[in-house]
Amino acid sequence: MGEKSKAEKVVSQMYDHDAFSQWMGIERVVVEEGHCVLRMKIRKEMTNGFAIAHGGITYSLADSALAFASNSHGRKSVSVETSISHTHALREGDEITATATEVSISEKIAVYYITITNQHGKTVALFKGTVYRTGREWEV
Amino acid sequence: MGEKSKAEKVVSQMYDHDAFSQWMGIERVVVEEGHCVLRMKIRKEMTNGFAIAHGGITYSLADSALAFASNSHGRKSVSVETSISHTHALREGDEITATATEVSISEKIAVYYITITNQHGKTVALFKGTVYRTGREWEV
Amino acid sequence: MGEKSKAEKVVSQMYDHDAFSQWMGIERVVVEEGHCVLRMKIRKEMTNGFAIAHGGITYSLADSALAFASNSHGRKSVSVETSISHTHALREGDEITATATEVSISEKIAVYYITITNQHGKTVALFKGTVYRTGREWEV
Amino acid sequence: MGEKSKAEKVVSQMYDHDAFSQWMGIERVVVEEGHCVLRMKIRKEMTNGFAIAHGGITYSLADSALAFASNSHGRKSVSVETSISHTHALREGDEITATATEVSISEKIAVYYITITNQHGKTVALFKGTVYRTGREWEV
Repeated sequence: MGEKSKAEKVVSQMYDHDAFSQWMGIERVVVEEGHCVLRMKIRKEMTNGFAIAHGGITYSLADSALAFASNSHGRKSVSVETSISHTHALREGDEITATATEVSISEKIAVYYITITNQHGKTVALFKGTVYRTGREWEV
Repeated sequence: MGEKSKAEKVVSQMYDHDAFSQWMGIERVVVEEGHCVLRMKIRKEMTNGFAIAHGGITYSLADSALAFASNSHGRKSVSVETSISHTHALREGDEITATATEVSISEKIAVYYITITNQHGKTVALFKGTVYRTGREWEV
Repeated sequence: MGEKSKAEKVVSQMYDHDAFSQWMGIERVVVEEGHCVLRMKIRKEMTNGFAIAHGGITYSLADSALAFASNSHGRKSVSVETSISHTHALREGDEITATATEVSISEKIAVYYITITNQHGKTVALFKGTVYRTGREWEV
Repeated sequence: MGEKSKAEKVVSQMYDHDAFSQWMGIERVVVEEGHCVLRMKIRKEMTNGFAIAHGGITYSLADSALAFASNSHGRKSVSVETSISHTHALREGDEITATATEVSISEKIAVYYITITNQHGKTVALFKGTVYRTGREWEV
């Protein structure tokens, strides 16, 4: 077992206190600087009146991915604007994977694309998130 | 006690099958055609690694408001694009209210602004949602 | 004739150097702190392949309104994320008015809603803009 | 010289009537089904009060790319919601390239990512566009 990277240490600290990500059952597949891959399963209690996953579930997974990817550099970063398109319905039992990619980063602002796919590799949601990078560092 | 309006009947049917809105504890304060007001309380399990409400919670409340307001006309409507800015942090115990306003409606597309405020009336999130209006009616 | 307010001075200085806003023929109707109203007319050269105003024209008017409203406090502010829905087509000769409203402002980030209407008062576009407020002041 | 593809025929017809894309000096580098690459140069009259390209210019280029890429299938398609982040400033003389990629398409709705880069390959703007696909075909 190798050393944990700084990105992994920051995200572990965030995840350990993140009650909602734990309720969702989010699993961290990859955590690197500016990038992460998260996975979870749609449960019955996550569905809505159309018998499909509530849009808030895919958003929440993507929002966790945004928080983890943007904070992974060690600087505390907060979401300022996010958007999501739900492109394919999800049902109970579906497994979804969110992949966060850093598409722009400057001193104060960074932008991430997060793609969510189902267990068949089909894109189910497209998320774009912008964060403000504070001057405060994570202590890990 | 008067008759339930069509808007109320449609939204009741949606809400009764919406497990996730029920998990969140969403209360319907006002339901009218093209408009609704929803309320809920932030619980411990809805917070994240910053000890504040996960961004997915306010999004989920807004997304339910979008679904209820847009379907309230009786036509099945599905979200095609949504965006949210989180402008003020929320803590356990805070009570939030989402107010959905229809700002544009045509045969196929409608747009809603949803403002979320806390118990002090302060705006905590700004949401904009666009839906596609299918040709299918709700049977209520 | 009264004194020019600080907001008016800042926006005059911006406008005087803004070649593109001048090309568009933008007229400043109201300029106040955190708020402005702009007006312009759709010319033939602003239309596209559908014989209606190019989406870039209404966006450009809204983006100027965002710049003027957000800088009007005297702090240099730059756009970080903007979105627009085009809800009604515009033709040559139509006159459009953009009204910018500050919906959230904090030390570093501010959010504006900008509604564009035509000469009949009909909403033709809905714009939401987020700016980063730098630490630099306008010298006026 | 081979035959023009259907995508090229549709986009040629759109472009030939698109006065504003012509004013901007947009050059079509690649036009294929669901995809296009456009290029243009920043002129003095496209700059704003910060002596950089007005945000409306990069938006307009991206919006033309959205129109061309989404209509290239032969079905008339109209923008319903677009967002753009301006990530790097542009000056007079800079040459910019917009690359449109279709990231989701269904019977009624399609989503495109459009990345704009400068002559050094640096990303200067990130655009996401959603269109409604009408039932009407282009006649070419």
